Amino acid sequence: MKGFGMLSIDHVGWIEKERPACGELDAIIHPIVLAPCSSDTHVSHGGSGEHTNLILGHEAVGTVVEVGKLVKKFKPGDTVVVPCTTPNWLTENVQGEYNAHDEGLMESFKFLGSKDGTFAEYFHVNQADANLVLLPEGVSPEAAVMTTDMMSTGFHGVENANVAFGDTVVVIGIGPVGLMAVAGSKCHGAGRIIAIGTRPNCVKVAKEYGATDIVSYKNGDTVEQVLDMTDGGADCVIIAGGNANSFNQAVDMTKPGGYISNINFFDIKDNLSMPAYSWGLGMSNKTIRGGFSPGGARRMHKMLDMVKYGRVDTTKLITHRFHGFEKIEDAFHMMDQKPADLIKPVIFVD
Amino acid sequence: MKGFGMLSIDHVGWIEKERPACGELDAIIHPIVLAPCSSDTHVSHGGSGEHTNLILGHEAVGTVVEVGKLVKKFKPGDTVVVPCTTPNWLTENVQGEYNAHDEGLMESFKFLGSKDGTFAEYFHVNQADANLVLLPEGVSPEAAVMTTDMMSTGFHGVENANVAFGDTVVVIGIGPVGLMAVAGSKCHGAGRIIAIGTRPNCVKVAKEYGATDIVSYKNGDTVEQVLDMTDGGADCVIIAGGNANSFNQAVDMTKPGGYISNINFFDIKDNLSMPAYSWGLGMSNKTIRGGFSPGGARRMHKMLDMVKYGRVDTTKLITHRFHGFEKIEDAFHMMDQKPADLIKPVIFVD
Amino acid sequence: MKGFGMLSIDHVGWIEKERPACGELDAIIHPIVLAPCSSDTHVSHGGSGEHTNLILGHEAVGTVVEVGKLVKKFKPGDTVVVPCTTPNWLTENVQGEYNAHDEGLMESFKFLGSKDGTFAEYFHVNQADANLVLLPEGVSPEAAVMTTDMMSTGFHGVENANVAFGDTVVVIGIGPVGLMAVAGSKCHGAGRIIAIGTRPNCVKVAKEYGATDIVSYKNGDTVEQVLDMTDGGADCVIIAGGNANSFNQAVDMTKPGGYISNINFFDIKDNLSMPAYSWGLGMSNKTIRGGFSPGGARRMHKMLDMVKYGRVDTTKLITHRFHGFEKIEDAFHMMDQKPADLIKPVIFVD
Amino acid sequence: MKGFGMLSIDHVGWIEKERPACGELDAIIHPIVLAPCSSDTHVSHGGSGEHTNLILGHEAVGTVVEVGKLVKKFKPGDTVVVPCTTPNWLTENVQGEYNAHDEGLMESFKFLGSKDGTFAEYFHVNQADANLVLLPEGVSPEAAVMTTDMMSTGFHGVENANVAFGDTVVVIGIGPVGLMAVAGSKCHGAGRIIAIGTRPNCVKVAKEYGATDIVSYKNGDTVEQVLDMTDGGADCVIIAGGNANSFNQAVDMTKPGGYISNINFFDIKDNLSMPAYSWGLGMSNKTIRGGFSPGGARRMHKMLDMVKYGRVDTTKLITHRFHGFEKIEDAFHMMDQKPADLIKPVIFVD
Repeated sequence: MKGFGMLSIDHVGWIEKERPACGELDAIIHPIVLAPCSSDTHVSHGGSGEHTNLILGHEAVGTVVEVGKLVKKFKPGDTVVVPCTTPNWLTENVQGEYNAHDEGLMESFKFLGSKDGTFAEYFHVNQADANLVLLPEGVSPEAAVMTTDMMSTGFHGVENANVAFGDTVVVIGIGPVGLMAVAGSKCHGAGRIIAIGTRPNCVKVAKEYGATDIVSYKNGDTVEQVLDMTDGGADCVIIAGGNANSFNQAVDMTKPGGYISNINFFDIKDNLSMPAYSWGLGMSNKTIRGGFSPGGARRMHKMLDMVKYGRVDTTKLITHRFHGFEKIEDAFHMMDQKPADLIKPVIFVD
Repeated sequence: MKGFGMLSIDHVGWIEKERPACGELDAIIHPIVLAPCSSDTHVSHGGSGEHTNLILGHEAVGTVVEVGKLVKKFKPGDTVVVPCTTPNWLTENVQGEYNAHDEGLMESFKFLGSKDGTFAEYFHVNQADANLVLLPEGVSPEAAVMTTDMMSTGFHGVENANVAFGDTVVVIGIGPVGLMAVAGSKCHGAGRIIAIGTRPNCVKVAKEYGATDIVSYKNGDTVEQVLDMTDGGADCVIIAGGNANSFNQAVDMTKPGGYISNINFFDIKDNLSMPAYSWGLGMSNKTIRGGFSPGGARRMHKMLDMVKYGRVDTTKLITHRFHGFEKIEDAFHMMDQKPADLIKPVIFVD
Repeated sequence: MKGFGMLSIDHVGWIEKERPACGELDAIIHPIVLAPCSSDTHVSHGGSGEHTNLILGHEAVGTVVEVGKLVKKFKPGDTVVVPCTTPNWLTENVQGEYNAHDEGLMESFKFLGSKDGTFAEYFHVNQADANLVLLPEGVSPEAAVMTTDMMSTGFHGVENANVAFGDTVVVIGIGPVGLMAVAGSKCHGAGRIIAIGTRPNCVKVAKEYGATDIVSYKNGDTVEQVLDMTDGGADCVIIAGGNANSFNQAVDMTKPGGYISNINFFDIKDNLSMPAYSWGLGMSNKTIRGGFSPGGARRMHKMLDMVKYGRVDTTKLITHRFHGFEKIEDAFHMMDQKPADLIKPVIFVD
Repeated sequence: MKGFGMLSIDHVGWIEKERPACGELDAIIHPIVLAPCSSDTHVSHGGSGEHTNLILGHEAVGTVVEVGKLVKKFKPGDTVVVPCTTPNWLTENVQGEYNAHDEGLMESFKFLGSKDGTFAEYFHVNQADANLVLLPEGVSPEAAVMTTDMMSTGFHGVENANVAFGDTVVVIGIGPVGLMAVAGSKCHGAGRIIAIGTRPNCVKVAKEYGATDIVSYKNGDTVEQVLDMTDGGADCVIIAGGNANSFNQAVDMTKPGGYISNINFFDIKDNLSMPAYSWGLGMSNKTIRGGFSPGGARRMHKMLDMVKYGRVDTTKLITHRFHGFEKIEDAFHMMDQKPADLIKPVIFVD
């Protein structure tokens, strides 16, 4: 079969591979809609080290083509939504509060990590019964594919930020995940939502998703702007972009007793640092959290129900639509180059 | 001064009283906008026992006319929003999780309870600095008065129901508090919202606030209808109306691991009861909560920020507007008789 | 193979059966230590309806004799502790807050429910990797068998009661689960612990586990006694015994804002009921919870670590020790008849 | 009156001042037992900038000598326990989750901050009804004085670390606050408790309070030692001592999904920093919290109940006892010099 991926660091292209084998609990899926993500491009440039002939991609809606003999809920022909995080539910770690770290840090993220991704004619999903869900009636495949990582990650940022009724929330970075954090904050009780970003397309969608204020670094120090606007700091700050400095900026923007929630991949070379006084010498009751997108069937059901019942329109994220399996390549390069008007491209495979 | 209230059980009318004295931490307020509540009519009929010459009313926006000498944040002339619950913040009980029970059950509810209410030319608010907030710019007095009890109570129902992203929520009863529970559920992440009620006006507003489904007892047993629609029960059920049976119906409608949240005043003669099997013999992990509207300045700020930033339009509740202080009487009687098209009346005092 | 169980309602005895088959994710265990529970005797008397030739028992430490080919962490010869609740971790329901209701109410409880129990030469455990743990060094099999249901259930009562530093906790019923609720309350921050019970043996152990006060119905109404002692109610009340009235008594004993937590199996014929005023007309912020023992490997690890590091000595529960597989019968009848000096019997199989 | 305090940076001595005035909600206290704290010595060396003639001290049990006319619960002659944190309960900030930041960061800490401390013949307590508690029967003044900061702070570290049944907890630093964090961890469900420290006296008490393992930097890198012992990290790490590096060490010692809780005052010149990979590139779901000792009457009641009912013996902290008001000076200098056998000195005033 054919797949698109990383040949070696900084080289991507088409790869010919065997179709993956289906374990007894697993499923093999043929994609219907796919979306590239900056994690894919980041990995292609060596972000997680050297890989050769690794098929990329981790956001997909597809058709089941094969299931293992212990699978009960799915059969070939089913249209399914695939979370980007597909934990091994038979590990002890997922029996706790988070499911992203089944056998170790982020190891529930199988695509790109321990196996090939979704940019292929066929891809593998472990523990189908626990990880897949049927595409719900009334939800389009393109709306659904935006829930698999963008929405689940952005909304996890909101959960970790402890957003409560009437809170003032800052979202740093309004790429697709940050935009979902804006939408999620609105859906979780935020009053004022201050989005920090500059790209006009993103600013427009941020407002549609519920941002009440836009802050740009072009108008001066963003921390000072937020402190001025909020009379001493926000209740919740969600880091969904930026760089290593976003960490200490977020702490500075938060008032005592508030929450900082990170959903941005920092670079492995980054050093995260803050003056002790920003954190109230350790006494400020500012809580700092950072987490990876929760996965599994229940998570997908919850996210998809919010789409189905009209709580959030994920398709606002989609700025570019490609048709045809081979267009994965164009979509990927677009994601890599990030033209000014891009938020998120999708590929309709057939 | 003049006030409108309960002369004795089942008799209401105008009362002449001394203007209340202002303690050192307190404020005296002249009302701008008032709203009667079914708690007022309930009390007038003896719901909390015999009272004579008790001024009714507990929802108000007003003007400060006097402050005690220890008050720092307010001065005569300020336009303020008054929460219906005004705790004594110097008691130990409010240092815990809830603030409604300062010196005992519901004792933070001072109006109608330990003193006269707001249907007067002047009324008293204890601990002004901790309980009052300025009317925020951009929020109308009529929108604000709906936050003081209706919104704070309805939203408390949502908080106690533990509504999380994508949850299916049932709201039993869609009077003004139930409608706020619908709006609050939407604002706290609900996917599907099933509202149980029949009055056309309320059904219409329930849909505008985010109800996706309407269930009526006219179409059969409401529990069966909800179980059919939800494939075994809702995640969260909020009781905002009905009668003693609503208690066991709510438990029946909830799936294992779900939450039942009551914000309905049961009658003192009610017996709340359920078959053990409805509660899974005590093993179902269905949590049952019931609570009184939280009060205080912070609560008001949070609620008002949701209005100010456009998250909820509380004025949808207002179906009737009266002008003139003396119209308290008409508004009160309307609330008492509940004509079919009534949700909530307000009185503009001057 | 031989097993001891329920021949029909009210008839127990030895049963000859095929050794259970081992699924690919599963394990077959030979018991080392077993303990009967009042759930076993309750089922034998028809508590969950008619069953014929059902092997009883659900508390066990044993030796692995066979594992399915997908099992990675265990091999024949391993000594393992078996939680009484062994969820199917590939269901969506266990991805939420509780794991006891995998495919429906209490369905994670497989023993006695959907298959034979542990009172057999060989018994079956589903999803071995996710449900079994090795017996930790330094923990005796008899101490470990007390964690599988008694401790996990009693401690779940404490978790649901939200016991926090300095809280006053009432435990109604001091059979083995109630005693574990006493021990767990002490281990979770309780200040005062009031245990309600009368059997001298249990009273003695309750005090050793941390009870500071003992209340007996013989000295008058238990609710009044508790209200007198606590100046208006306890922070937390755990129901671990009694009858249907314990439900409303627990609510009456709790102060506004407090927690009632049930871990007692009510009878299917019970009606749970309370006057509305006990619950503050629905306004008291008294939270009522009831839950089934959480299971799985992580739970067992946590419980066993508390034994291993000396936080709780579960062997205080064991009043009678039997030696030999065939002594299951005697131990079972003892559990059924509950002599005055019994807390918990165990059987050492070989 | 006489008081002992900071004359200027690095100069301490006796100060003659007016007895403080008593506001209407307040009380004036004469001390019975006092204890110096490293915060006092830190301030004396300029830790919070220049002060002149500032009376030090913030841990006290005393006798009420005067109350304001609005005080209801106390009268001259009462023996009271004084929390080190005495919030202004009429501010909005204390109506949220934490009470230490009434009008700004740590501003609920009045002693040393906005007014004189407790090392005086008379000291002032704001809002007596909400902040003071009577010394409970059965609790000695010296046991009680240890709850006012040491226990409340150490236990706050445990609360923020989210210690749950069976968790493995690391406590970095076993001075008096760290020792209370050890004791609190045991009282909140910890299984294994690893204490990091070296002073023999403290090691001994740490073990008595429940530490199961002692780690010393003298045996190598403490992070490596903890990772080796715990197979990949602890569930909870409490920072109660050390230096700026303790921050990143704590993150390194914590496993994915775990909690880091700081109760150590970092220096205003410290920079807190960690490599992004320690925090899983921001994806590890390691929560970082830091907080200031909660105060108020309810907190004191909860802490004192744990002492009263024998859950923790705070007097193990007391290594040196001084008698006579004028011995404040010796006790202070001892605290400043920290001899090897010191944990905590107390002064019996009369």
